[in-house]
Amino acid sequence: MTADTRLDVALIHYPVLNRINEIIASAVTNLDLHDIARAGRTFGVGTYWVVTPDAQQQELAGQIVDHWTTGYGGSVNPDRANALSLVRICDDLDEVIAAMHESNGRQPMVIATSADRQGNSITCGNVQRELAQGTPVLLIFGTAWGLAPEVMQSVDATLPPINGPGDFNHLSVRSAASIFLDRLSGNREDVEKHVNWKE
Amino acid sequence: MTADTRLDVALIHYPVLNRINEIIASAVTNLDLHDIARAGRTFGVGTYWVVTPDAQQQELAGQIVDHWTTGYGGSVNPDRANALSLVRICDDLDEVIAAMHESNGRQPMVIATSADRQGNSITCGNVQRELAQGTPVLLIFGTAWGLAPEVMQSVDATLPPINGPGDFNHLSVRSAASIFLDRLSGNREDVEKHVNWKE
Repeated sequence: MTADTRLDVALIHYPVLNRINEIIASAVTNLDLHDIARAGRTFGVGTYWVVTPDAQQQELAGQIVDHWTTGYGGSVNPDRANALSLVRICDDLDEVIAAMHESNGRQPMVIATSADRQGNSITCGNVQRELAQGTPVLLIFGTAWGLAPEVMQSVDATLPPINGPGDFNHLSVRSAASIFLDRLSGNREDVEKHVNWKE
Repeated sequence: MTADTRLDVALIHYPVLNRINEIIASAVTNLDLHDIARAGRTFGVGTYWVVTPDAQQQELAGQIVDHWTTGYGGSVNPDRANALSLVRICDDLDEVIAAMHESNGRQPMVIATSADRQGNSITCGNVQRELAQGTPVLLIFGTAWGLAPEVMQSVDATLPPINGPGDFNHLSVRSAASIFLDRLSGNREDVEKHVNWKE
């Protein structure tokens, strides 16, 4: 990992939606920390921001990260320590953006993901070109039933939903983050586009 | 989902390796069931085989699947019922291959994935072409520290490890399965290859 890494990921626990479109704060989960940290480390993410305003949830997340970095977990599994060391816990998206601005010397481009198509949509190719031109990029993911409208409306752009051949697109946030990071890495010379193996 | 779907996924809990390369049976985990079922449903997988010879582990997996398909979980979250209905629990890989042979009228091509490069390596493009030609394909993933050598040696081919810009490739099996299914779907017209945004 180099100091000039420009792609960060944020996992938002507030404000997000519940099943009936109310705004809630979701709980931090152990495997969201691990899986997205491991994918982030694989694909060259700079910082994996875990965003929750709840002090007890922040403490819980911190304990998990500490166990796997400076604690016993990290001593028996250095690869996990390497991955989890990407995590920074913070209060809200504004704090993330301010920290990225400070470390990169410029405002990051904030890009939301969603299982539903949103306005201001861009492609992974667009994001790759922004990164190649030196734009710091923050990719944000919602927990629970997705990012609240106020977050969606505040971002610079959105990535389209991940769809397969059908209309089912209820991926876990762990899967969605992994897939977008893989797509943005562009490291897939062997994949054929649009081979129609589904009838 | 149509009856002619030819791509299946199997998650192997035995025989797999532990941290010190001993052959073990790993435990079924709740989120492996959910995340890979959700990715499987998104990307058009026919059956998600959960492979363990342990009767108690089979019972546990069956209880989880039942809760989310015919039970209370499925009634409040039909999308989850849709995904988890892909799961079939079985004893070993031979049983999976025999069932695929029977339902497809021909032997499936069995392809292993691994975090280490193996012999007999093929590309995602190769697999896409096999699928387009009507070859039933079984994609197998190992839990714990990966598939045992006896499994690796028995398969028809292997897919290369998922790598990013560095040498860290310790993805969760949930992330790896999601990424390979996305790559095989080929549904990514907007991704630019080899945009060098990492310095």
